[in-house]
Amino acid sequence: MITITDIAINHATIRKQADMTRFIELCVERDIKTISIWGDEVDRVGERTVLPVLQEIGLRVLGYNRLGPFEPKFLDRTRMELERAARFGADHVMVFTGGIPGGQRDLATLRRQHEDCIGKLRDEAASFGVTLALEPLHPMLFGDRTTLASLSRANDLCDALGEGVGIVIDVHHVWWDERLEAEVARAGAARRIVGFHVNDWLLPTKHLLRDRGMMGDGIIDLAAIERMVRRAGYGGPIEVEIFSDDWDSRAPETVLDIAIERCLAIF
Amino acid sequence: MITITDIAINHATIRKQADMTRFIELCVERDIKTISIWGDEVDRVGERTVLPVLQEIGLRVLGYNRLGPFEPKFLDRTRMELERAARFGADHVMVFTGGIPGGQRDLATLRRQHEDCIGKLRDEAASFGVTLALEPLHPMLFGDRTTLASLSRANDLCDALGEGVGIVIDVHHVWWDERLEAEVARAGAARRIVGFHVNDWLLPTKHLLRDRGMMGDGIIDLAAIERMVRRAGYGGPIEVEIFSDDWDSRAPETVLDIAIERCLAIF
Repeated sequence: MITITDIAINHATIRKQADMTRFIELCVERDIKTISIWGDEVDRVGERTVLPVLQEIGLRVLGYNRLGPFEPKFLDRTRMELERAARFGADHVMVFTGGIPGGQRDLATLRRQHEDCIGKLRDEAASFGVTLALEPLHPMLFGDRTTLASLSRANDLCDALGEGVGIVIDVHHVWWDERLEAEVARAGAARRIVGFHVNDWLLPTKHLLRDRGMMGDGIIDLAAIERMVRRAGYGGPIEVEIFSDDWDSRAPETVLDIAIERCLAIF
Repeated sequence: MITITDIAINHATIRKQADMTRFIELCVERDIKTISIWGDEVDRVGERTVLPVLQEIGLRVLGYNRLGPFEPKFLDRTRMELERAARFGADHVMVFTGGIPGGQRDLATLRRQHEDCIGKLRDEAASFGVTLALEPLHPMLFGDRTTLASLSRANDLCDALGEGVGIVIDVHHVWWDERLEAEVARAGAARRIVGFHVNDWLLPTKHLLRDRGMMGDGIIDLAAIERMVRRAGYGGPIEVEIFSDDWDSRAPETVLDIAIERCLAIF
């Protein structure tokens, strides 16, 4: 049984309806203590507006989005993003490799390039005292959005990199994998699970990116995966992250109320 | 370098525009020697109409679709499908587990049930001298269409079952997997690769089921995967199987001509 303090809300869940200032208000009204944030949303309202508010309220920032995609124009922003993540006191900074650059089809080389890049980002992040978080995405996003599409690969990468990099487990991306339980245990044994994102897999799923379900509306055994993550030693919040045209069309108050209600019922 | 005799066409590629009789005509006009067929398409034109035609022409049937989904009303048809596949001289019969029955969320149990079912189907198929083919589907189809979504798992299952069951490798389902090369080699070493399906992964992919690309229009390194499959010892045809609303809207002659041209250029 969890309580409201175990729930974190990722701004992406209601970013279409609520800017960061409104997002913070809505979370505070519901006694949410932890949020995950997006750099571009900070820009929209201005860091000087929003950072003091967060600090005054004492809302904790769990995940900061994000480093990447691994293209020159985004990599140029790395230092700025890391410094800002540190100012916000983020627990971890999400790494987003992006997909396959036009024309490149040699996946082995591309994976190696992206992994080298993660290593460099890790070194840079360490100098700011910031932990990176790798999030393996669903294989349907491989090529378009990521080159890291399994928890197993994320574990391999963390093994190779050592300190300063953890893993975020999002149920939408990994629920189907027959290796899930073993790889969650492996990540837990290495104490590298830094986040646990929840949503659901709808039947049918109508869009590869923007049709995630509200917890309980799909077919993922969410309680079972939470138990796996807990058994593996994860003690952090359960973070709600839903990308959905359907939920984007509803009032943000409704989305948050239902998300919280579902979390309290399921976990 | 392949020639036209190395190319097989799966009827699904043009089934919306051409019934089985027309499909056969179109293949014969293009000197295609091998096709894969669907039981429901046989029903549409009548087995007594189409089987003698196939036999007279000498077109070879590679894959017969299909056994499953694993629901009572389909499993009741198993014997009929196997007998018919044998009459058509099919090289292998595709196994299609189907997704997660309503309400069932315990994946470990479901996987076990489906694997038990495959074992029984294998025994039944053996009595008709028919080889089954497991086709791991893309993880985005897990739950909706399958409970078998990795080549690794298909190999495990074949190891457990022994004779009478092979694997079809479809690039669309497995191209993203970092284990691909190792698992293709493993399947080849066990001499269980019975088919190789080609199409492409489009960026963006707009639909989970019906937006496969024509070879060359997407981002899969098709030539590299063909080399993997050949190195693993597969000597059979390259089978074109495209499910696509886009290609379904074009003349079947055009679809076949382009598919053949692309295969000859790429492989």
